[in-house]
Amino acid sequence: MAKYVIVGGVAGGAGTAARLRRLDEKADIIMFERGEYISYANCGLPYYSGNVITERSRLFVMTPEKFKQSLNVEARVLSEVVSINRKEKSVHIKNLKDNTEYDERYDTLILSPGASPIKPPIPGIDNPSIMSLRSVTDIDNIKEKIDNPATKRAVVVGGGFIGLEMAENLKERGLEVSVVEALEQVMNVIDYDLAAEVQQHMRSKGVNLYLKDGVSAFEKHGSLITVRLASGTLIDTDLVILSIGVRPDTAFAREAGIELAKNGAIKVDQYFTTNDKNIRAVGDAIEYTSPLTKSALTVPLAGPANKQARLCADNIVNGNKRPYGGTIATSIAKIFDLTIASTGLTEKSLRKAELPFREAVTHAGSHAGYYPGSKQMTLKVLYHPTTGKVWGAQAVGYVGVDKRIDVISALIGKEGTVHDLAEFEQAYAPPFSSAKDPTNMVGFIGENVLDGLSDTITWEEAAEKKAAGAFMLDVRSPEEFALGKIEGALNIAHTDLRNRLAEVPKDKEVVINCAIGLRGYLAERTLRQNGFTKVYNLTGGFKTWEVAMR
Amino acid sequence: MAKYVIVGGVAGGAGTAARLRRLDEKADIIMFERGEYISYANCGLPYYSGNVITERSRLFVMTPEKFKQSLNVEARVLSEVVSINRKEKSVHIKNLKDNTEYDERYDTLILSPGASPIKPPIPGIDNPSIMSLRSVTDIDNIKEKIDNPATKRAVVVGGGFIGLEMAENLKERGLEVSVVEALEQVMNVIDYDLAAEVQQHMRSKGVNLYLKDGVSAFEKHGSLITVRLASGTLIDTDLVILSIGVRPDTAFAREAGIELAKNGAIKVDQYFTTNDKNIRAVGDAIEYTSPLTKSALTVPLAGPANKQARLCADNIVNGNKRPYGGTIATSIAKIFDLTIASTGLTEKSLRKAELPFREAVTHAGSHAGYYPGSKQMTLKVLYHPTTGKVWGAQAVGYVGVDKRIDVISALIGKEGTVHDLAEFEQAYAPPFSSAKDPTNMVGFIGENVLDGLSDTITWEEAAEKKAAGAFMLDVRSPEEFALGKIEGALNIAHTDLRNRLAEVPKDKEVVINCAIGLRGYLAERTLRQNGFTKVYNLTGGFKTWEVAMR
Ligand SMILES: Cc1cc2nc3c(=O)[nH]c(=O)nc-3n(C[C@H](O)[C@H](O)[C@H](O)COP(=O)(O)OP(=O)(O)OC[C@H]3O[C@@H](n4cnc5c(N)ncnc54)[C@H](O)[C@@H]3O)c2cc1C
Ligand SMILES: Cc1cc2nc3c(=O)[nH]c(=O)nc-3n(C[C@H](O)[C@H](O)[C@H](O)COP(=O)(O)OP(=O)(O)OC[C@H]3O[C@@H](n4cnc5c(N)ncnc54)[C@H](O)[C@@H]3O)c2cc1C
Ligand SMILES: CC(C)(COP(=O)(O)OP(=O)(O)OC[C@H]1O[C@@H](n2cnc3c(N)ncnc32)[C@H](O)[C@@H]1OP(=O)(O)O)[C@@H](O)C(=O)NCCC(=O)NCCS
Ligand SMILES: CC(C)(COP(=O)(O)OP(=O)(O)OC[C@H]1O[C@@H](n2cnc3c(N)ncnc32)[C@H](O)[C@@H]1OP(=O)(O)O)[C@@H](O)C(=O)NCCC(=O)NCCS
Repeated sequence: MAKYVIVGGVAGGAGTAARLRRLDEKADIIMFERGEYISYANCGLPYYSGNVITERSRLFVMTPEKFKQSLNVEARVLSEVVSINRKEKSVHIKNLKDNTEYDERYDTLILSPGASPIKPPIPGIDNPSIMSLRSVTDIDNIKEKIDNPATKRAVVVGGGFIGLEMAENLKERGLEVSVVEALEQVMNVIDYDLAAEVQQHMRSKGVNLYLKDGVSAFEKHGSLITVRLASGTLIDTDLVILSIGVRPDTAFAREAGIELAKNGAIKVDQYFTTNDKNIRAVGDAIEYTSPLTKSALTVPLAGPANKQARLCADNIVNGNKRPYGGTIATSIAKIFDLTIASTGLTEKSLRKAELPFREAVTHAGSHAGYYPGSKQMTLKVLYHPTTGKVWGAQAVGYVGVDKRIDVISALIGKEGTVHDLAEFEQAYAPPFSSAKDPTNMVGFIGENVLDGLSDTITWEEAAEKKAAGAFMLDVRSPEEFALGKIEGALNIAHTDLRNRLAEVPKDKEVVINCAIGLRGYLAERTLRQNGFTKVYNLTGGFKTWEVAMR
Repeated sequence: MAKYVIVGGVAGGAGTAARLRRLDEKADIIMFERGEYISYANCGLPYYSGNVITERSRLFVMTPEKFKQSLNVEARVLSEVVSINRKEKSVHIKNLKDNTEYDERYDTLILSPGASPIKPPIPGIDNPSIMSLRSVTDIDNIKEKIDNPATKRAVVVGGGFIGLEMAENLKERGLEVSVVEALEQVMNVIDYDLAAEVQQHMRSKGVNLYLKDGVSAFEKHGSLITVRLASGTLIDTDLVILSIGVRPDTAFAREAGIELAKNGAIKVDQYFTTNDKNIRAVGDAIEYTSPLTKSALTVPLAGPANKQARLCADNIVNGNKRPYGGTIATSIAKIFDLTIASTGLTEKSLRKAELPFREAVTHAGSHAGYYPGSKQMTLKVLYHPTTGKVWGAQAVGYVGVDKRIDVISALIGKEGTVHDLAEFEQAYAPPFSSAKDPTNMVGFIGENVLDGLSDTITWEEAAEKKAAGAFMLDVRSPEEFALGKIEGALNIAHTDLRNRLAEVPKDKEVVINCAIGLRGYLAERTLRQNGFTKVYNLTGGFKTWEVAMR
């Protein structure tokens, strides 16, 4: 009878335990959890503080009692694994209820300790009103603080998805909310041009944003905290949520000689085996190879943790037969009315990995414009400039963003190209899509570039060409042009272009823009077939330019 | 200068014209349309009659004037192509405004005449209050009839998606609505078990359904029509919408010797070439090879028509370089609050094609249950029993059905398997999905069957085994069992099963059910690993059984 011991009782740990049981009815399965609860909905915590999720009990997907009854897994809570004796194949446990300690033997040890919020050594950080969020206990504390009528202001440090979800929920609870982010943008999983839309939206909801500014100190004045930023800005607040990222919670593994990466993540092979063949690891605490960049990757997301857990159990019980391909880090967040989602690589990450890419941006309706409720979304796809392989995609919008990113995620998982996007068969009826879906449109744009029909450029490249003296041609209608334009552009509506070709110089680079890129492309085709060769179409059009330049 | 002549001015015709222009700025492009309008939103017509789309002008995606200005395409409306002179490479046109006739020469002729509603020779069918729906003119007539306060009752003949969309819109306008369908179910693009959910929903909305019953006659009594059904049932009505399917509108092509299939569809090769190399065809009027069954297929859907148009233009201008892979007929409809969607093959079509398959059914939340607004959907996947290749999927539910079918459609397009479903990385945050998405779940179910961990059976197979004397084991809680059960089943909650194994016979076939299949699977694993071998898990559980048996 095999004995499986698991460290960590949430996504990765409980998921592995459950699958182990289904594969091995007779095994002894013990799961240790340091906290008070197992299998809780970490991802729901921000919404619980915002009273969107009203029943606390709903945060618990599984309890130790149910786990025992249903899957005969023994979950010991308030039980910290403090060390591993690899020679003896045992772990040492501290029972946090009564402070007793004991050992437990294992045949296979599975580590899913997750990652804990980073707490940098900023002066004043140990103030009890500076909180971070990982567990149910954390949110209980935060909620108590919010429920106190004396709490009127909050500062969220860190503009990642957990930070922004907290900002939304704090704002919805009536607090004055500020977000401080050291980078020039929020939501690092998308690029600047899309993040700018998110920032605009948050400001419109009354959230104060401090970008490109870090915290240099937290100053305590009675119950009040003054957050001092690097720029000198001071923000008075009653509560700080610290949300600048997470770090693998692996001190006990390090001490046991488990090989860790620089960021503290446990290094595993494709079968989740660590440098000790009897110890496996999954979840937020591990590092493996990115299928896209082929370099090391740690992704703290629940979908991958759950999928790793299932595969890990298979490899333990049936031998190493199911290699893990890694994750493309598909992620999403709802921030107020906006949905922000991303899959695969961003422009930033492609640059860092020195991978060649091009981008296609469109602003398209979530469904047919003539059917009520259609909302515009921005969809950006990054692809390989010669093979057309899709590297990644990101989208921001109100409806249907999750669907488009999921489709592209599925296609990236199958090494799909822009041709696959172009050919993708969406389920179309007017309430759901258009006869050409936004995913098709970005596929078409990419195909046209690969085929040499079009040469798209980004807003940054357009700005460079403009500075270098390119001829800027705006092909929107005069009415649209009057409402806002790229400075110095000449306006020839695309419907007039065939009659006004003489006004476009043949010896200069011509940068075309319309509102979103479509009419710009039509104009580009007309120019190219009339002997203009140095023609570029601004991808995403004036809408992208305007948001990014603001 | 090439001269392209196009027959039909909507999805396929206008789409081809537009792409032709982008590829060939100098060509002469003339598009003939028999009706009054080009480029209208056929798919929006039902919603216009229901006053969901309120502005008639929004139905026109493009007008001849705009088409000329934007893409320099000449669209001639009220111009019917009555014949083709293939030897002279010309078409003969009848101008329906002034009844003049003339010829127009072509280098390449593109046919996209679409398909017209089938009007079978039922006695009394020529009554003007019996209407069908294809064009704007049709909907104008229908709307006029509905707007007349004397119109209080409507009968929709045909339970396909157009029929049901019309039924919904007529009902929303306050009419008493009956749907008559000759088959035993509505929505033939999904299987009976899912269609039963749709039928239940429509009845709950007050629509009368007459299934497995055909119309034998329409009897005129003044302004009233009595619809006589084969069963003898009589339904009095003021309006009949005839919506029993469409037939390629290809009489003029037949006369010209263009090779047609039995259903009247134009036979084309992968480049949309007909038996005349100067004549191509796209859209609802063509037949090609199904990528899934490899047999002949005609699919009247707007997405494929638009994609074919784009490829067809490429093959005309650049030579035959872009073969069309055919369509997997991904489709969707909103019927009242329900979304019904389908991609690839159904159980029915697999049987017909004599292809081997298995099915996995789940009832899963549209997103995490603890986050408000999650709604259950039924998701069914059909896959190859040994390779796991996904043949098709269908879903019915309130939210997020379109997303799941789109993802599976994308994967089928890449010859994906149940493993790809299991590994698919959804964008997960509580408002959008679960840590394991419904698409993952059906993938897991399929994987477990392929791996021999589970043996799922359908509700029909379960009924057969029951009749043959199988032991029926219901592993839900006693409370759930008390509310409804499979007659004759023994109830042992899955949490009690390990202690009550002795009550399950080892020598009989054991059919397990729970509510949706999950706990049944847990029980199955426990039984199998305790020496029970003839164990089956009812896929979709009691929820599927109950709906299908009703
Ligand atoms: C507020 C919040 C919101 C989130 N939202 C999303 C989202 O929307 N989408 C998404 O995909 N992901 C989200 N995540 C991330 C997701 O929750 C994690 O990726 C996932 O839970 C990782 O699972 P894990 O098992 O690796 O770690 P965890 O879920 O963190 O579980 C690890 C457990 O191990 C325990 N532990 C650690 N060390 C020991 C020890 N030595 N002994 C005993 N027990 C130990 C810890 O107490 C912890 O409970 C969110 C996370 C948070 C905190
Ligand atoms: C009410 C309704 C709802 C629909 N809803 C959906 C939906 O939700 N999703 C979906 O995917 N599809 C839907 N469709 C189907 C979709 O509209 C068609 O698949 C698509 O329009 C096919 O394009 P086509 O160019 O082949 O044919 P059509 O769009 O039918 O265009 C053919 C045109 O050719 C003209 N024509 C025919 N013969 C001649 C001739 N000899 N000379 C000149 N002109 C001629 C006709 O007048 C017609 O306007 C719906 C259709 C209808 C009628
Ligand atoms: C209106 C109609 C003539 C338009 O044809 P179209 O110009 O090919 O289609 P769209 O307006 O959707 O534009 C698509 C083109 O714009 C390009 N495009 C779209 N967004 C773009 C962007 N942001 N940047 C650059 N190019 C873009 C696409 O690449 C595509 O061009 P391509 O085919 O050369 O690659 C035709 O679609 C039609 O008649 N539709 C209505 C009828 C119908 O479909 N009915 C059934 C459904 S209700
Ligand atoms: C609760 C928890 C222990 C459940 O583990 P689990 O039993 O593997 O997961 P689920 O309840 O989702 O069930 C999935 C299993 O049921 C099976 N299943 C699901 N629906 C089914 C159906 N209709 N028919 C048959 N089997 C079905 C799946 O195949 C899968 O089994 P497998 O892995 O052996 O193939 C674990 O997921 C957990 O702790 N979750 C909460 C923590 C968390 O994820 N937090 C982060 C996100 S907020």
